[in-house]
Amino acid sequence: MFREKIKVLDCTIRDGGLINDHQFSEEFVRAVYKALSMSGVDYMEIGYKNSAKLFPASEFGPWKFCDDETINRVIDGIPSKTKISVMVDIGRVDVNDIKPKKESPITMIRVASYAKDIDKAIKLVNEIHHKGYETCVNIMAITKVLDNELVEALDQLEKECSADVIYIVDSFGFLYQETTEYLIKKAKSILKTKEVGFHGHNNQQLAFGNTIEAIIHNANYLDATVYGIGRAAGNCPIELLLGFLKNPKFDIRPILDLISKELIPLRDQIEWGYIIPYALAGMYNAHPKEAMDLRESEKKEN
Amino acid sequence: MFREKIKVLDCTIRDGGLINDHQFSEEFVRAVYKALSMSGVDYMEIGYKNSAKLFPASEFGPWKFCDDETINRVIDGIPSKTKISVMVDIGRVDVNDIKPKKESPITMIRVASYAKDIDKAIKLVNEIHHKGYETCVNIMAITKVLDNELVEALDQLEKECSADVIYIVDSFGFLYQETTEYLIKKAKSILKTKEVGFHGHNNQQLAFGNTIEAIIHNANYLDATVYGIGRAAGNCPIELLLGFLKNPKFDIRPILDLISKELIPLRDQIEWGYIIPYALAGMYNAHPKEAMDLRESEKKEN
Repeated sequence: MFREKIKVLDCTIRDGGLINDHQFSEEFVRAVYKALSMSGVDYMEIGYKNSAKLFPASEFGPWKFCDDETINRVIDGIPSKTKISVMVDIGRVDVNDIKPKKESPITMIRVASYAKDIDKAIKLVNEIHHKGYETCVNIMAITKVLDNELVEALDQLEKECSADVIYIVDSFGFLYQETTEYLIKKAKSILKTKEVGFHGHNNQQLAFGNTIEAIIHNANYLDATVYGIGRAAGNCPIELLLGFLKNPKFDIRPILDLISKELIPLRDQIEWGYIIPYALAGMYNAHPKEAMDLRESEKKEN
Repeated sequence: MFREKIKVLDCTIRDGGLINDHQFSEEFVRAVYKALSMSGVDYMEIGYKNSAKLFPASEFGPWKFCDDETINRVIDGIPSKTKISVMVDIGRVDVNDIKPKKESPITMIRVASYAKDIDKAIKLVNEIHHKGYETCVNIMAITKVLDNELVEALDQLEKECSADVIYIVDSFGFLYQETTEYLIKKAKSILKTKEVGFHGHNNQQLAFGNTIEAIIHNANYLDATVYGIGRAAGNCPIELLLGFLKNPKFDIRPILDLISKELIPLRDQIEWGYIIPYALAGMYNAHPKEAMDLRESEKKEN
């Protein structure tokens, strides 16, 4: 019943880090890695690889930079088949910071790009690919991209880019199932030699539903986070996704333990989830920035 | 773009009443009625019409009995096109308590029934229909019904029952989109002379997604509640549903005000929503009873 090609990528630390300036303790990250490893999750995205020259290390936690040494320390001694992924933003990474794959604990590097920056993304991915990494391009804010621009970007990615996977990213949590179906089918029709991935946001409580829709239409790379943690409304909860997928290699229980011990206490300190201003931002296809400002103001429930 | 036949039924007070033994104040119910009326919602289900001979009025609030006098008091003076609905359970209602439609503020009466009790439901609906009410049958626990039993129940409803609408009810929040599609299509194929409705539960954050799926496959009666309130994981949030539907008669703003003023404070007193034990009950196609007991125990996050 299950589709062996499906890979689940957990981005708890990477997307969750957008709420707390990447300040998770090494202990917490280690607990997440351990639970994901025991659960058989394919990838763990452990943060961003931003250039330390561009961002002051005093203001951000270690998961904005993801030094190999820090990663090695948190994964040390934990039996695991879970591969480590990091994300890079165009213009915020120094490609010289990235060592050849065989010297690094990182397996996959994902380039986040707007459709308009696709040429820069392709150049960057090809350099990273050349160093031996698995690579992805995550096309962000997909619901702001006109159809002809999307087709052109996908065409270029198919012809010029070494990336193994191209992700459709519903940055604003605007998608309903019908448009998810449309976009995944479009991507599959153009990307003949690559896998297609989906990353949803939960503004309208549809991150999981849209992920199922993406699976139905043959997306094989799926992003999710533990207890749905992530900026603003958060992401597709990995515990629901593992419950849906039938592959016997997955075990939901270590994730449930992690939620009970770590995520529920954390939710009392930092906020994410179904909150009306984020739902409205989703309905209006808007960045959650304004809604996030409102949540930090005195009129937070207004 | 919109489908005029679509009707939205709010069951905030009825399903929400399952959390607090139907103890909402008249002020609160009036505020909900006012907001729904201003938002153009088609129906408001205001509670159950249970026999006061069977349940002690000292243990339950007024919305378990829904006397016409109480209803008249809370709706008095509010301009509204929103019709009032109540739900009855087989064996818990005294049909003699139900006055002829023209003497009552109630427009619609919905009979909740398991598939195995469909003969009793049909008898009850036909009596109620004869008194002049719009009528529905809500087939509960649909994910426990074998296909042949469902086909037989639907056949009987089509041939022997006066109900205007037959609802598919995902009592346990077990449905994914594919099975929702299957069930709605099946119901539509048999119920040639009736409308089909859908009532989701949000255990797996799919109540809204499944409701969209039901709409795509021509269900025209849709249940939802303000801010998703309802027993255990709750229901499809009406604010998301109105955001999705394109009919210009709907206005989401009065609902948002109501959430801000009434529902967010209420959520601090009574619990519903995405909570792991309810998610697991959904995955296992189980009644949330055990999970609800756990939430009331000391090990609530275990």
